[in-house]
Amino acid sequence: MSLDHAASKPHEALATLLRDDMEAVNSLIEARMASEHAPRIPEVTAHLVGAGGKRLRPMLTLAAARLCGYNGPHHVHLAATVEFIHTATLLHDDVVDESAQRRGRPTANLLWDNKSSVLVGDYLFSRSFQLMTETGSLDVLRILSNASATIAEGEVLQLTAATDLRTDENIYLQVVRGKTAALFSAATEVGGVIADADPEIVKALFDYGDALGIAFQIADDLLDYQGETSQTGKNIGDDFRERKLTLPVIKAIAQATQEERQFWVRTIEKGRQEDGDLEHALELMDKYGTLSATRDDAYAWTAKAKAAMAKLPEHEIRDLLTGIADYVVERLN
Amino acid sequence: MSLDHAASKPHEALATLLRDDMEAVNSLIEARMASEHAPRIPEVTAHLVGAGGKRLRPMLTLAAARLCGYNGPHHVHLAATVEFIHTATLLHDDVVDESAQRRGRPTANLLWDNKSSVLVGDYLFSRSFQLMTETGSLDVLRILSNASATIAEGEVLQLTAATDLRTDENIYLQVVRGKTAALFSAATEVGGVIADADPEIVKALFDYGDALGIAFQIADDLLDYQGETSQTGKNIGDDFRERKLTLPVIKAIAQATQEERQFWVRTIEKGRQEDGDLEHALELMDKYGTLSATRDDAYAWTAKAKAAMAKLPEHEIRDLLTGIADYVVERLN
Repeated sequence: MSLDHAASKPHEALATLLRDDMEAVNSLIEARMASEHAPRIPEVTAHLVGAGGKRLRPMLTLAAARLCGYNGPHHVHLAATVEFIHTATLLHDDVVDESAQRRGRPTANLLWDNKSSVLVGDYLFSRSFQLMTETGSLDVLRILSNASATIAEGEVLQLTAATDLRTDENIYLQVVRGKTAALFSAATEVGGVIADADPEIVKALFDYGDALGIAFQIADDLLDYQGETSQTGKNIGDDFRERKLTLPVIKAIAQATQEERQFWVRTIEKGRQEDGDLEHALELMDKYGTLSATRDDAYAWTAKAKAAMAKLPEHEIRDLLTGIADYVVERLN
Repeated sequence: MSLDHAASKPHEALATLLRDDMEAVNSLIEARMASEHAPRIPEVTAHLVGAGGKRLRPMLTLAAARLCGYNGPHHVHLAATVEFIHTATLLHDDVVDESAQRRGRPTANLLWDNKSSVLVGDYLFSRSFQLMTETGSLDVLRILSNASATIAEGEVLQLTAATDLRTDENIYLQVVRGKTAALFSAATEVGGVIADADPEIVKALFDYGDALGIAFQIADDLLDYQGETSQTGKNIGDDFRERKLTLPVIKAIAQATQEERQFWVRTIEKGRQEDGDLEHALELMDKYGTLSATRDDAYAWTAKAKAAMAKLPEHEIRDLLTGIADYVVERLN
């Protein structure tokens, strides 16, 4: 399994290392997104799956299982499970956010309709439960059903918290754990569980996924205010225009003067935005240094992810997972 | 457990007989629809659960388990699972159908928004998987995850089949199995499985639920054309106006003249409806006797449900379940 990854990015090196496993995952996804009776299902799913994200989540499951010496067939089922849950979530998110673009392509809700996105999401969600049931591991079922509930709870919390100026860093963290970190941590945890790893190893894998997911989401939220459109596929300030409270703004609100607070009430809580508001919001974030403070937070979570990895035995995959933790915040430079 | 049910309807008599179990189910539902972080979740759920349907599906699970002599605690988890899956489906259905009323009250998507309905539905769906995982029975997990996939597949199929004049009785039956019968049959089947009943008993319970669900849906579709608004909470011809092909129309299209076919193409496929179209549609159904043919089909499925029950040993609950099969078509008289 050894290769020279010196030149490549860590997630690409991991993808190369796990190529055979990933091919098995892709075949299983292909087989299970089929539907005998409803051709709309594979059409919608293929549009999203075919757009090809990095498949980071299923790769985390495969990596965790291999790192723990797993040699059975079920890490493939679990990786496909994780990707199906992720895809179902994306389909429903795009309906909830009324999004028109995802991964640089029109969203399924735009190409077909909201109905198809809701119901095909439900189908993939059900398929994911079938796949995890096939592993025969009740521990795995417990972890993944808990993660699903945490994801949905985080999404509902975000609905009400996003435009509520009382949303503080703790509530933000709950939302982020729900919408992003819960699936990352379940993905790594079940890899250890299916390999029957020791509890402290499983705990370290969970902690790694949790911290990685949080770092990833904080970086994403930061890039919304300072990234390039080409890098993120989004425009600068989309979250501001969509009235989504994220960490850089939450930090600015916490320090706001009376007058500044009125600005945030008008633009975020009431959504009455005017020309120049985004620029003023960026000035306020600059005044309190909240973009760099947010960057520091992302780095702190990366450090936690790496500390968790350090508890695992030496392994080529361990080093690549450590590299991935660095990589998710490297985008910020 | 014995009571005099002579005077009451069979589902009411069953509810009385299973009162303690149903109270345990209601408490479990109450506890599990809570959310520590997102108060929107119990608000939306309580609106729907509090509107109080007949709770027929969870009662079927309790009845099947008791009929098979089950004495453990897990039939309560399974009944709550079934009710959560049903509630999640209703929330998503109302988004898909853009419904404004359910059980005589405004729908959640109208009172809150589509976003809340989609995400709270996802939450209840996840909760249902947590509950079934707690039973520790992989057979139960297999049956219920398969049923969930069948439900979602049936709903997607309905999206494309409902306005497609090629939809024949076979496709209609697939849709009905998905949208209604799959949860009925899973509800009765898991009751037998959790009680460790013999395979032929489990099979008979499945067959009963399947036939009962189909009879129930056919009766519903028929009532849309001949019921009273007070009985169904819907207006006569809602399915026609919403361009949903159901059995009475499918049977009329199968026998249509060239000219009649053009009428169905215009009104259902193209959705260009005018004053008097519903009346003409009813005339065509009358011409070919499709309402009474549809009623005959509902009765035939009721007979199948009763034949399945006849394979079970004598039991008070068996007789009530047989009575329920009669009751779902009694509405048609």
